[in-house]
Amino acid sequence: MASDLSPRKQDELRAAFAAQGLMATFGARLAILAPGRIEISAPIRPETSQQQGFAHAGLSFALGDSAAGFAALSLLPEGADVLTVEMKINLLAPAAGARLVATGEVVKAGRRLSVVRAEVHAEAAGRSRLVALLQGTMIAA
Amino acid sequence: MASDLSPRKQDELRAAFAAQGLMATFGARLAILAPGRIEISAPIRPETSQQQGFAHAGLSFALGDSAAGFAALSLLPEGADVLTVEMKINLLAPAAGARLVATGEVVKAGRRLSVVRAEVHAEAAGRSRLVALLQGTMIAA
Amino acid sequence: MASDLSPRKQDELRAAFAAQGLMATFGARLAILAPGRIEISAPIRPETSQQQGFAHAGLSFALGDSAAGFAALSLLPEGADVLTVEMKINLLAPAAGARLVATGEVVKAGRRLSVVRAEVHAEAAGRSRLVALLQGTMIAA
Amino acid sequence: MASDLSPRKQDELRAAFAAQGLMATFGARLAILAPGRIEISAPIRPETSQQQGFAHAGLSFALGDSAAGFAALSLLPEGADVLTVEMKINLLAPAAGARLVATGEVVKAGRRLSVVRAEVHAEAAGRSRLVALLQGTMIAA
Repeated sequence: MASDLSPRKQDELRAAFAAQGLMATFGARLAILAPGRIEISAPIRPETSQQQGFAHAGLSFALGDSAAGFAALSLLPEGADVLTVEMKINLLAPAAGARLVATGEVVKAGRRLSVVRAEVHAEAAGRSRLVALLQGTMIAA
Repeated sequence: MASDLSPRKQDELRAAFAAQGLMATFGARLAILAPGRIEISAPIRPETSQQQGFAHAGLSFALGDSAAGFAALSLLPEGADVLTVEMKINLLAPAAGARLVATGEVVKAGRRLSVVRAEVHAEAAGRSRLVALLQGTMIAA
Repeated sequence: MASDLSPRKQDELRAAFAAQGLMATFGARLAILAPGRIEISAPIRPETSQQQGFAHAGLSFALGDSAAGFAALSLLPEGADVLTVEMKINLLAPAAGARLVATGEVVKAGRRLSVVRAEVHAEAAGRSRLVALLQGTMIAA
Repeated sequence: MASDLSPRKQDELRAAFAAQGLMATFGARLAILAPGRIEISAPIRPETSQQQGFAHAGLSFALGDSAAGFAALSLLPEGADVLTVEMKINLLAPAAGARLVATGEVVKAGRRLSVVRAEVHAEAAGRSRLVALLQGTMIAA
């Protein structure tokens, strides 16, 4: 449900997402859950693995960071853009499964700086496991 | 110069790097600078961009995290492996240019936990600019 | 409610807290909310201020870090101890008011490493404001 | 050596430090090493310990965060102030000894945001040991 976001804002988010080459490379998909709440998911594939076959920490980070960034962007005025100032990730379990699902949310929205969080779950055969936790800062650019 | 690392350890590092699908997807290259000091570089391409055409924070993170992880691995006994426990990245400037070069180093080597750092520079036409700073923890696995 | 913690474990937590000179210096109080959930509060006083009269970031950090550490400790076997491996704090608003209340919780309990989080609220005249968010790692020692 | 800082700027830094009640509570001392480079030290006392008698992580954090903050402030125009946006600390070894010495430096100075780092050493009987590493963001306020 993204009913509180204007159609134009939703279009902006989708256009910004489509313009991220890395998300296309990852086969990632955007879901606008609500203002300040965004989900980005991607398959776990050999092309995004680390040496043991799990999803690379870089994939968990990229999805979580992007979900958090789009969550911040969703609360900014139309025409705005955001950049990551800093982001911290804790990895809780090996990212094994069929796909990663990152959910980003805004803890504190500011005119310039927003504090954001994201969770990343690995999903397989109906099971879902929390594999990463992110906390960071976005800046309106 | 990696003269203080055994040929077998160097082979292990190269094999672990080659086994990381994500690094291959990024066209990344490994350079063993010294025990506890590793460089990983990759081109900045549309396939790894964010919405403004700069390298995605996810690319800077993946290269820096991997350089730091391989730096930790280089100091562990043969046969060991490492996983990222947690990593923090500060982004200092837009990652514009031809390629990113991440240099990882071990600040404190432990039998189980190692504290690591990495710097990521964006290079273009002979210029080099610091774009990201990472600090985190690796665990022997 | 701490009914799921053995009386001996509760005694251990209170004894460990009482042994922290810094908490006494801050006039801090411990509340065992539940297994894996601990509250530590302290008055905001000139002795713990920064240059503008707000509570120093060091006070918010110390309370949040301790609440998270005791939350981790509450889930470990009797006789265990914990140390902070790393901790990240985001400061959301000036810590103005009469007292700070930090609530720590365990996101993932491990035999050795636990991932923890804490929130710090500033309270005054019935109002409560989120001023800091922490995320980090504790190790059983 | 602080010869590149104007006497007025140095006075401002010392006045801001003197106004921090927490630093006085810790018996901390300020040393202006250079523009963008500040040292803050404090004795390790029972009043600032954790349960095992080492300096509390909150002391290492407060000194490192303050050293980094004053380093950022030293590069800002006269009359400016700074606040911590976020800070990450990795604890490398138990903080045992007679005193802690934190050295803060600016990695990237910005008009609004500055990226900073700090190291904290524990000193005793002529020996010095790195016990904490900090990396974070300051904002001009």
